[in-house]
Amino acid sequence: MSTEKMPIKALENVVNDVVSIKLKDNRIFRGRLTRCDIYMNLTLADAEELENDQVRAKYGSVLIRGNNILWIRIPE
Amino acid sequence: MSTEKMPIKALENVVNDVVSIKLKDNRIFRGRLTRCDIYMNLTLADAEELENDQVRAKYGSVLIRGNNILWIRIPE
Amino acid sequence: MSTEKMPIKALENVVNDVVSIKLKDNRIFRGRLTRCDIYMNLTLADAEELENDQVRAKYGSVLIRGNNILWIRIPE
Amino acid sequence: MSTEKMPIKALENVVNDVVSIKLKDNRIFRGRLTRCDIYMNLTLADAEELENDQVRAKYGSVLIRGNNILWIRIPE
Amino acid sequence: MSTEKMPIKALENVVNDVVSIKLKDNRIFRGRLTRCDIYMNLTLADAEELENDQVRAKYGSVLIRGNNILWIRIPE
Amino acid sequence: MSTEKMPIKALENVVNDVVSIKLKDNRIFRGRLTRCDIYMNLTLADAEELENDQVRAKYGSVLIRGNNILWIRIPE
Amino acid sequence: MSTEKMPIKALENVVNDVVSIKLKDNRIFRGRLTRCDIYMNLTLADAEELENDQVRAKYGSVLIRGNNILWIRIPE
Repeated sequence: MSTEKMPIKALENVVNDVVSIKLKDNRIFRGRLTRCDIYMNLTLADAEELENDQVRAKYGSVLIRGNNILWIRIPE
Repeated sequence: MSTEKMPIKALENVVNDVVSIKLKDNRIFRGRLTRCDIYMNLTLADAEELENDQVRAKYGSVLIRGNNILWIRIPE
Repeated sequence: MSTEKMPIKALENVVNDVVSIKLKDNRIFRGRLTRCDIYMNLTLADAEELENDQVRAKYGSVLIRGNNILWIRIPE
Repeated sequence: MSTEKMPIKALENVVNDVVSIKLKDNRIFRGRLTRCDIYMNLTLADAEELENDQVRAKYGSVLIRGNNILWIRIPE
Repeated sequence: MSTEKMPIKALENVVNDVVSIKLKDNRIFRGRLTRCDIYMNLTLADAEELENDQVRAKYGSVLIRGNNILWIRIPE
Repeated sequence: MSTEKMPIKALENVVNDVVSIKLKDNRIFRGRLTRCDIYMNLTLADAEELENDQVRAKYGSVLIRGNNILWIRIPE
Repeated sequence: MSTEKMPIKALENVVNDVVSIKLKDNRIFRGRLTRCDIYMNLTLADAEELENDQVRAKYGSVLIRGNNILWIRIPE
């Protein structure tokens, strides 16, 4: 498989765009993707935490640990 | 065992087809498979999240982390 | 230990037979084993999902992730 | 440490004997040990599933995944 | 660090002594340590299972999987 | 990818600054980051534990295990 | 990064001092640190188990498995 076709590459392609991330604790983070690695560790700028579609907190910059991520919504 | 007979190969064979994916949080994602790797990390296009067979949200493109997947329904 | 005596070999021996699989979410899948690997990743054809011995859903072909399997009932 | 003194060796020594196995879902399996490997993956013949000391189901042959085992009672 | 100072060495030093072991399912096993390895897999002889300080069952010999152990009380 | 762009680097860049850390048990730790490694193991000085935005305990220096971290809020 | 600056080094530096350890089962152990390794496996002497700040049990020497540790409070 070419590296270009790997799922993690779809994340690298949207650095600087806004993504939404569902964590194992059922919270969703929304923010601008600023860094990511192959373990899905990543950083967001202007990060908001949502619960049941309501903004629950604003955090500025957040580093999220990849192994607790369920899914990431990425812009098309 | 030949590579062709490996379970993950059954997933690679349906890239571009619609699959359903059950996650550990009991939600099901349905969408068109666009990328996958050997860890079952994958991306869906036109992704919908279902709960108790009802569409709960539409997400566009989603990257799903393989280690939180229970099963994937694949077209025959 | 000879490869022939390994537990996973008991699974390879029943490819094409019907097996039942208990997952961590307490559901049981029953279907014809079509592929398997050493991590217990596997595919079933004609798969049914059971809950409390009742058929809850029919899925056709399913890819199940090995690390969420509790046990597999195999024909003798 | 000699291989003979390793804990897993105590399991290999009772192949063909009846063992009881506690899984993470709180169920106990009892049956005749037919295969095992160093990850505690194993197969039982004449397997019964118990819940609160009552036989809940009879399964014939079962392959159990080692990483979900809490403990194994072995004959002395 | 010398091997002698490693935590697991404290366990090897009490082989043949009585230890108590807390598992992730909140049960405690008490018995004479007969084998152990570096993953904390171990075997107990004359093993008793306790719940809320009451003996709940006697098991004879038990093999306990290290990755589900919270702690082990060892004699001084 | 250059090392400078890795997510964990964003953490190294804020050593000596105050960070907030969400753990899997839903508690948040706030304190001055004094050490970190690539597994997100880290130490805080002047650490406070918060629950529902209230300070629940003050701990001085704390070593936090990386694999139980959900996210880390970092100063911009 | 120099070895001296690694988080685990902060633990090695307080061998023989009293530490408090939070485990995944929400209990806290307090005792004198006698051994530790890079996985945070460790042994305590004069160990007490606390629940809601009350001493619940005294255990003498205890070996704690690193992978179930949330955090360790260390003296400054």
